[in-house]
Amino acid sequence: MLFDILTIFPELLASPLREGILRRAVQAGHIDVRLHNIRDYALDRHKMTDDRPFGGGEGMVMKPEPLAACIRDVQSSGPPARVILLSPGGTTYTQQEARRLAGYPRLMLICGRYEGVDERIRQAFVDEELSIGDYILTGGELAAMVVVDSVTRLLPGVLGCEDSARNDTFSRSLIKHPQYTRPREFEGMEVPEVLLSGDHRAIADYRFLESVKETLKRRPELLADVRFTREEEKLLRRAGLDRQIRRTVQSGTDHA
Amino acid sequence: MLFDILTIFPELLASPLREGILRRAVQAGHIDVRLHNIRDYALDRHKMTDDRPFGGGEGMVMKPEPLAACIRDVQSSGPPARVILLSPGGTTYTQQEARRLAGYPRLMLICGRYEGVDERIRQAFVDEELSIGDYILTGGELAAMVVVDSVTRLLPGVLGCEDSARNDTFSRSLIKHPQYTRPREFEGMEVPEVLLSGDHRAIADYRFLESVKETLKRRPELLADVRFTREEEKLLRRAGLDRQIRRTVQSGTDHA
Repeated sequence: MLFDILTIFPELLASPLREGILRRAVQAGHIDVRLHNIRDYALDRHKMTDDRPFGGGEGMVMKPEPLAACIRDVQSSGPPARVILLSPGGTTYTQQEARRLAGYPRLMLICGRYEGVDERIRQAFVDEELSIGDYILTGGELAAMVVVDSVTRLLPGVLGCEDSARNDTFSRSLIKHPQYTRPREFEGMEVPEVLLSGDHRAIADYRFLESVKETLKRRPELLADVRFTREEEKLLRRAGLDRQIRRTVQSGTDHA
Repeated sequence: MLFDILTIFPELLASPLREGILRRAVQAGHIDVRLHNIRDYALDRHKMTDDRPFGGGEGMVMKPEPLAACIRDVQSSGPPARVILLSPGGTTYTQQEARRLAGYPRLMLICGRYEGVDERIRQAFVDEELSIGDYILTGGELAAMVVVDSVTRLLPGVLGCEDSARNDTFSRSLIKHPQYTRPREFEGMEVPEVLLSGDHRAIADYRFLESVKETLKRRPELLADVRFTREEEKLLRRAGLDRQIRRTVQSGTDHA
């Protein structure tokens, strides 16, 4: 898969690509990430990429011409790219969006800066606008890396067995159960007995209930989307969690 | 403000700190960001920081001893740090959380990897657990950078006039209005007449209505939290948007 990142700070993105799973994915040829400096496409001798907004107001706006020239140049070679603008006003990026984007052969990620990009770029060149969360960053660069990282780990062959994508949080709208590793006792705190039992069924049941409890505690709104099996509903009833879940889903519907 | 980032890939975080607003904030002494390699605190000669989960299952879990030693060593000097674990199961990070975190003198950000950290670290050392969004990353490093970046830009003196925090998206649960800069005509697309009028009142009204329209289109659920002034309600009625907003907020309440 090919990623093209359009930015005025290509150097900002250098080190995250040189470490960990992304580095391995690049080396193994699963992905290629190309950084393009929008400033190289500026027309004037000062290499300006931003200017003041029409209508007044604080801040600067990214100029249309350098961006348009950069987008066209990148599109002129290789397979057609899906053009994505990272901005706080975009559609909320989720694991479901990551799975969808993993199906494209090529993504072009435009990193907004300052007060945003000129509206005409959005209208004429951008296929979709994504936001990685309801907070403001100094630019779209970290957001672009979040997309590259989360999409790359879903590509076939990228993850080894030490980091599986199968049982992730959000693979099923439940927060993952707590995990324990050696030692059995750490500073007086023990590993729960059941995890040492070797009873696979009991372990699976325990982990399921812990997942539900964590989700109830921290992200109760996620439970509205979960479909439980009959077996799971039985477990929830036996643990006395069924009514709490119904109440939570119900009150989410009332006050959302 | 002091940030301590605990990671097994400190090099991954090098370049984002050397560019743009973060670099300037470091140079001006507004923030200090220290990277700590958890591997330096591993006890065995192979410097292992992860191990297999008790109870079976795929993936690896971050061992408790190196993390505990690293956390204690970092806490042993300087002001007490708020200890934050970045993980997909955490509370959702938002601009409101960014504002809250900006009030701490020191944040310790722990970057989870693999299948997560040993539960006993969470219970005994972590003050809060945050998630930057409902997607899975290969590790908490990019999430930690998102926190550093979004908190830093809120600190007094960090942003110059070219990038103001005052009129951000989320400063008021509305998506920002479109922005335009020179040229007036770009590839046949014109800047809206009103922005060239010099009529500040008309410009403010136009921008307000555009913000509401963008929010209706892409993040309608945000509108439930917005309180409009009487003046704004009059504008919305005149633009025929008042009923659409009421319907949107109402249906959000019904189906959420």
